[in-house]
Amino acid sequence: MRQAGRFLPEYRALRERHGFLELCKTPALAAEVTLLPIRRFPVDAAILFADILLILEPMGVGLEFAAGDGPVIHRPVRRREDVDGLLHAAPEQALAFVLDTVRAVRTELAARTPRVPLIGFAGAPFTLASYLIEGRGSRDYVHTKSLMYGDPAAWHALMERLAEATVDYVKAQIAAGAEAVQLFDSWVGCLGPDDYRTYVLPHMKRALAAIGAAGVPVIHFGTGTGALLELMREAGGDVIGLDWRVDLAEAWGRLGDGVGVQGNLDPVALFAPPEEIRRRVARILERAAGRPGHVFNLGHGVLPATPVAHVAAVVDAVHELSARA
Amino acid sequence: MRQAGRFLPEYRALRERHGFLELCKTPALAAEVTLLPIRRFPVDAAILFADILLILEPMGVGLEFAAGDGPVIHRPVRRREDVDGLLHAAPEQALAFVLDTVRAVRTELAARTPRVPLIGFAGAPFTLASYLIEGRGSRDYVHTKSLMYGDPAAWHALMERLAEATVDYVKAQIAAGAEAVQLFDSWVGCLGPDDYRTYVLPHMKRALAAIGAAGVPVIHFGTGTGALLELMREAGGDVIGLDWRVDLAEAWGRLGDGVGVQGNLDPVALFAPPEEIRRRVARILERAAGRPGHVFNLGHGVLPATPVAHVAAVVDAVHELSARA
Repeated sequence: MRQAGRFLPEYRALRERHGFLELCKTPALAAEVTLLPIRRFPVDAAILFADILLILEPMGVGLEFAAGDGPVIHRPVRRREDVDGLLHAAPEQALAFVLDTVRAVRTELAARTPRVPLIGFAGAPFTLASYLIEGRGSRDYVHTKSLMYGDPAAWHALMERLAEATVDYVKAQIAAGAEAVQLFDSWVGCLGPDDYRTYVLPHMKRALAAIGAAGVPVIHFGTGTGALLELMREAGGDVIGLDWRVDLAEAWGRLGDGVGVQGNLDPVALFAPPEEIRRRVARILERAAGRPGHVFNLGHGVLPATPVAHVAAVVDAVHELSARA
Repeated sequence: MRQAGRFLPEYRALRERHGFLELCKTPALAAEVTLLPIRRFPVDAAILFADILLILEPMGVGLEFAAGDGPVIHRPVRRREDVDGLLHAAPEQALAFVLDTVRAVRTELAARTPRVPLIGFAGAPFTLASYLIEGRGSRDYVHTKSLMYGDPAAWHALMERLAEATVDYVKAQIAAGAEAVQLFDSWVGCLGPDDYRTYVLPHMKRALAAIGAAGVPVIHFGTGTGALLELMREAGGDVIGLDWRVDLAEAWGRLGDGVGVQGNLDPVALFAPPEEIRRRVARILERAAGRPGHVFNLGHGVLPATPVAHVAAVVDAVHELSARA
């Protein structure tokens, strides 16, 4: 999960001097933010600091991060002609700053002991489409589903376009040095299984197959996906991300053999007293026991008000309790 | 699901002249709002117009519906002493206006052919607690879970208090004439199964057993509860509400015999073209086929921007397609 963020005072200090997009687009700064949690906690991997929506800006839709309001797309995609009007740009040019960040982080990480791998970072087509169509975060996804149900051909054209862009972007991150990739389908849990099968699965299958061919592990992440896990497995990925709403052992049972899982501590559990955090970490490790391929993580991102010491408590508990197991 | 609301022009006209709480607290108006959908659509039941938070006001926490902002609790419950400071009041006095509304609706319904039953309406303890603690709607439930994890004794005391108040309130609605009851645990899906089992299940079991003793059918509703269904069944209720994120047949299979289900059309599907709405209604009826005890409904409330004609299309499709089946 994104480890760097507003919960870290050193991140907040950087944000006082730099806009969010400026941080993302300045490789030296983005690399520094990527490394902040590595400097502070003995975590086992670094995850690229970026935003899933960066890929949308070169499409010409007018991406802005308005203070306090989250991302805004000034020219949302609502009709077929909006889909057809999206611009194409190779990530090596349009998103060169991300690839430069990957290279800068890899150089820094190479100088460190122990060796910590870098996980690349990208949004999945459905979640990207939901922002493109809504123009901002959403609760109900009315515009997204209206396009999906009302003009399926336009929907599929958009998903194809986004899947293709995502594959190119992720492969460019891998070529630049990302040693694994996490694909965030953060909001796909707003769909039922039938809709996932019809409107998302074919695109995810193709995208994940193409990314998988690049030869690095792929983490396929979503939230609220308790009823979609089998379909996410069918879509692909070496590791399926689980949020805290499912029991890890039960969910892994449904996913079957030959796939890892990532998860699934509730980010809000980090507001609990440290002994309760430890109990919850132990419970998750216990539920994962006996099966290789568990990546301990939160079920979603670290919340801004999270006490830093409690993040440290999680990292320590995971290391101590898994060494003991 | 609440059928009356902002999607109806006659409701919006009433709201131009009356505040939301004023509507709720004036039995003649609340009864009229309850009956609006009955007058417009050939639905098979009326559901009491009320707000789940009305029960909190007599506890002395300062409930307000601020225009555009949703409900606000001016003195949220965050610590044990806040829980202990909640006031007690019998629903027959403090919520007499709701009971008068129930009586007024029953009188009106008795004069109509065909006979349409009235479903009572109340929030479930967890969802009530989440508003009481957060002070407003929430995305992450940080304060709610912080109390739950940080002071379980205070949490359980609060849940006991809310469960008791809910039982009294629902029984009073039944005594006044409600012929079934829907208990809304709208936000309980933010919890994983372990937390539900520890922090919610015992209270729901007791409350649903007490309500069940009153002898009318109880619909136990939640959203995002794909991983909680077996536990919700264990908690009780004659019918379990399903949202659109689960497959109806698969979910009902997990719930087992001897329980009905309600659901599960996505409210956003009502923005689709009528023929697509019809296809989706047919699909749900098909998934429910062969089992008695299915209450067709949306998976959550009707959204304000929903076209009225599309609500009519759902009602017509359900009647026509289930008569055919």
